[in-house]
Amino acid sequence: MLLIRPATVNDVALLRTLIRELAEFERQLELCVIEEATLLRDGFGAKPKFRALIAEWSGQTAGYALFFGYYSTWVGPGLYLEDIFVRPEFRGKGIGMALLAAVARIALQENCCAMRWEVLDWNERAIELYKSLGVEFRDEWRPVLLTDDALRRLAERAL
Amino acid sequence: MLLIRPATVNDVALLRTLIRELAEFERQLELCVIEEATLLRDGFGAKPKFRALIAEWSGQTAGYALFFGYYSTWVGPGLYLEDIFVRPEFRGKGIGMALLAAVARIALQENCCAMRWEVLDWNERAIELYKSLGVEFRDEWRPVLLTDDALRRLAERAL
Repeated sequence: MLLIRPATVNDVALLRTLIRELAEFERQLELCVIEEATLLRDGFGAKPKFRALIAEWSGQTAGYALFFGYYSTWVGPGLYLEDIFVRPEFRGKGIGMALLAAVARIALQENCCAMRWEVLDWNERAIELYKSLGVEFRDEWRPVLLTDDALRRLAERAL
Repeated sequence: MLLIRPATVNDVALLRTLIRELAEFERQLELCVIEEATLLRDGFGAKPKFRALIAEWSGQTAGYALFFGYYSTWVGPGLYLEDIFVRPEFRGKGIGMALLAAVARIALQENCCAMRWEVLDWNERAIELYKSLGVEFRDEWRPVLLTDDALRRLAERAL
């Protein structure tokens, strides 16, 4: 009943819908301003900046995972899981685990020895799932983001 | 006196030395197992998985920054700063800031609207520097790592 398939150019509108559902779940929908044209350009051109998998349950869209390559200077190439989401009505069926396993298989096929991602500290259900996999929580590391005006001010600094 | 230049294929041995100095500063040298051949293959072939900048102070190697593209499904492409390091004897000269600014300029040139990175929670000097730039500390997000046997077990799970 579960099918996991790569997202194609025909999935751009669906992908944006799923991305916005995840942003709403993360209580930050107002920060999600991506447009279909941007996803089309960046994910489905000659040099895709990301890849995505769509999970279908009995033909209905149940969730997705979106990832890209990263590089660890300690061990080499890995896959970074930017998004993973299962729609509420499809939870409890192992779909999140199946999406994770599908990304892990791609990682190994591509000679990556690691996956990285981030989880919100209040998302206990996801944290328990990840613990069951034997992940390492790298809690001594603080994620940092620099955007917009602050990024431009930095770029314009004199040497 | 300060020169910031892209790392080339001739810098692979130097880059590995700098990477190991940073790993030692981060108190995790034992986890840094990267070899020159891996950095050569992954950074300086037809499809580089990372780029690096070398900082020179009066002709001496003073530090480096290493980065690659990431993708935010909320706003689009960005640059991920995996490593930034200034050798102890060259600190206090603005070299770290200059490396950050150089990466920020590349980000804007490539139509990225954000940079991401991580900082160790005990690295107060770096945290103060980043605060002065107006970064956002995304402390509600916990970084997760899945490697080796745990990654293989996940990949081998039946659907």
